[in-house]
Amino acid sequence: MTAVYTLDQIQAALAGVDPIPIIEAGFVAYSQKRVVVAPVGELIFDNPPGDLHVKSGYVLGAENAVIKIVSGFYDNVGRGLPPISGLVIVMSQKTGVLKAVLMDNGRLTDVRTAAAGAVVARYLAPQRPSTIGVLGAGVQARLQVLMLAPQCPCRNLLVWSRTDASAERYVNDMRQRGYTVERVATPRQVVEHAQLIITATPSTKPLIEADWVEPGTHITAMGSDTTDKQELCSSVLAGADIVVTDSLTQCTSRGEIFHAVSSGHLSLDRVRELGQVIMQPTLGRTRQDQVTVADLTGLAVQDIAIVDAVLRGLPNTDR
Amino acid sequence: MTAVYTLDQIQAALAGVDPIPIIEAGFVAYSQKRVVVAPVGELIFDNPPGDLHVKSGYVLGAENAVIKIVSGFYDNVGRGLPPISGLVIVMSQKTGVLKAVLMDNGRLTDVRTAAAGAVVARYLAPQRPSTIGVLGAGVQARLQVLMLAPQCPCRNLLVWSRTDASAERYVNDMRQRGYTVERVATPRQVVEHAQLIITATPSTKPLIEADWVEPGTHITAMGSDTTDKQELCSSVLAGADIVVTDSLTQCTSRGEIFHAVSSGHLSLDRVRELGQVIMQPTLGRTRQDQVTVADLTGLAVQDIAIVDAVLRGLPNTDR
Repeated sequence: MTAVYTLDQIQAALAGVDPIPIIEAGFVAYSQKRVVVAPVGELIFDNPPGDLHVKSGYVLGAENAVIKIVSGFYDNVGRGLPPISGLVIVMSQKTGVLKAVLMDNGRLTDVRTAAAGAVVARYLAPQRPSTIGVLGAGVQARLQVLMLAPQCPCRNLLVWSRTDASAERYVNDMRQRGYTVERVATPRQVVEHAQLIITATPSTKPLIEADWVEPGTHITAMGSDTTDKQELCSSVLAGADIVVTDSLTQCTSRGEIFHAVSSGHLSLDRVRELGQVIMQPTLGRTRQDQVTVADLTGLAVQDIAIVDAVLRGLPNTDR
Repeated sequence: MTAVYTLDQIQAALAGVDPIPIIEAGFVAYSQKRVVVAPVGELIFDNPPGDLHVKSGYVLGAENAVIKIVSGFYDNVGRGLPPISGLVIVMSQKTGVLKAVLMDNGRLTDVRTAAAGAVVARYLAPQRPSTIGVLGAGVQARLQVLMLAPQCPCRNLLVWSRTDASAERYVNDMRQRGYTVERVATPRQVVEHAQLIITATPSTKPLIEADWVEPGTHITAMGSDTTDKQELCSSVLAGADIVVTDSLTQCTSRGEIFHAVSSGHLSLDRVRELGQVIMQPTLGRTRQDQVTVADLTGLAVQDIAIVDAVLRGLPNTDR
């Protein structure tokens, strides 16, 4: 029998999971070539704009294969609908039998994506940022910051968002979470005053220019996951001391590095894979004045890892 | 709310659907470029051997996007498990919201795949075959034949299968369905005596040689849908008067035509797309002595079309 799990059940199971070490181990497995993934299945919609991604794969020798489906329709926000939807499918690696459907509505993607930001910060962020800067005011703009809290004492936020209403909500929400939050009018003001910067927008035009970036800054760019989306001018990557990707394969076809490499700003052999950095931390930040950039487009192995952990906390059927 | 539909509900809805015209219209929409599809997501498993395919897409201007997941683990049969598993996901094209999960366990794939064979036969099969030949003894070996019944009066079957037990079951099952069935020891005996041939095996080695094929024969090769699987010697395609594919794009990377083209036996410009043949039937069989081959690897548009029809027969939630 196939188990169908509700979002409530999944949230309860998530409460018992620390996603950061789980996602970190996933990146290592990926860089060690122990993960088989299919190319990302991508559907782009024009009217209204949206995208739908299917990520699937399995860890060699494990029990399950995981297929994760998530949609992003950012105009939904103005219509009172959540921008993200989706679910996760679990099938046996030994029989192909459908074992579980996790009606997570994109929640597992949210968590594994934010956890990747925290993993990145462990190896790339400056030691004592006085301000965390955020572009965007959606789910990831919140979760990425909250996921940093256990490892980073900074509670000062600067936020910029395209839309007033969501920026206001963001300020209120994060203040309730104990952060000092200031909203600024331009991405430039964020970049000039923050040392740890998270870009979490669906922008298709670069928001950050290289001239604004101070020595010692780290930027995690996680908003761009298609060929169209872009948050950083390619010169930002060209000027960085260290550029890290979640996947050397995937970054050639989507995200910030794709733009920077295809426009000739960046040579791919300068890019380091996150799993390699985790295994050999000297590939990460070694001096406080370095500029570091991580470009995350999201990997199936993150879905596999978080699902594996969550399944252990869910009521067992016939697993 | 997302509706989760059981196999029983889906079967009940299928009973009210004639899939052949629906799938035919789907192929036309595809060849008219009215369908957006993602590249096939494919995971291959080695131990035990199996594959998992994700096909997704949408018809421009329609309501939904469809993601179909199906696994094939052919060694399951010997272990008392079904070789096929899977489900179908329906999301709104306008909001990305997850609308329905169809726990069809591969049933919709079975039906839309068999219906494609019937569509092919309308345009390519000889007028009055005296014998239908089948390689394989699984679900498609049955369904492809049964789906032909309304349009083809022939009830004489020749069947070959690798494994005795499944061949015996096939003979019994099809006799109960009113067919005269003879089991033969080699693929060659099938090919030499049948005028309408269906290959429905997961073979990775060619089973049919060009010399065996008589004038006037039609072959629907539907078993091969990866780069590894192959049922026909490439010389069979080279020697055919007409070669039809479901997708000119997809046939360059998987299936019989992929093998024939990449080995230099067949020029891609000789291959006709099924939707084009439907729109212009003179691209199909025009003489009874022609040898015709159709290579079907399965398209997302078939999933979209059958799901659309089935959804109309399912209890409505908030669609």
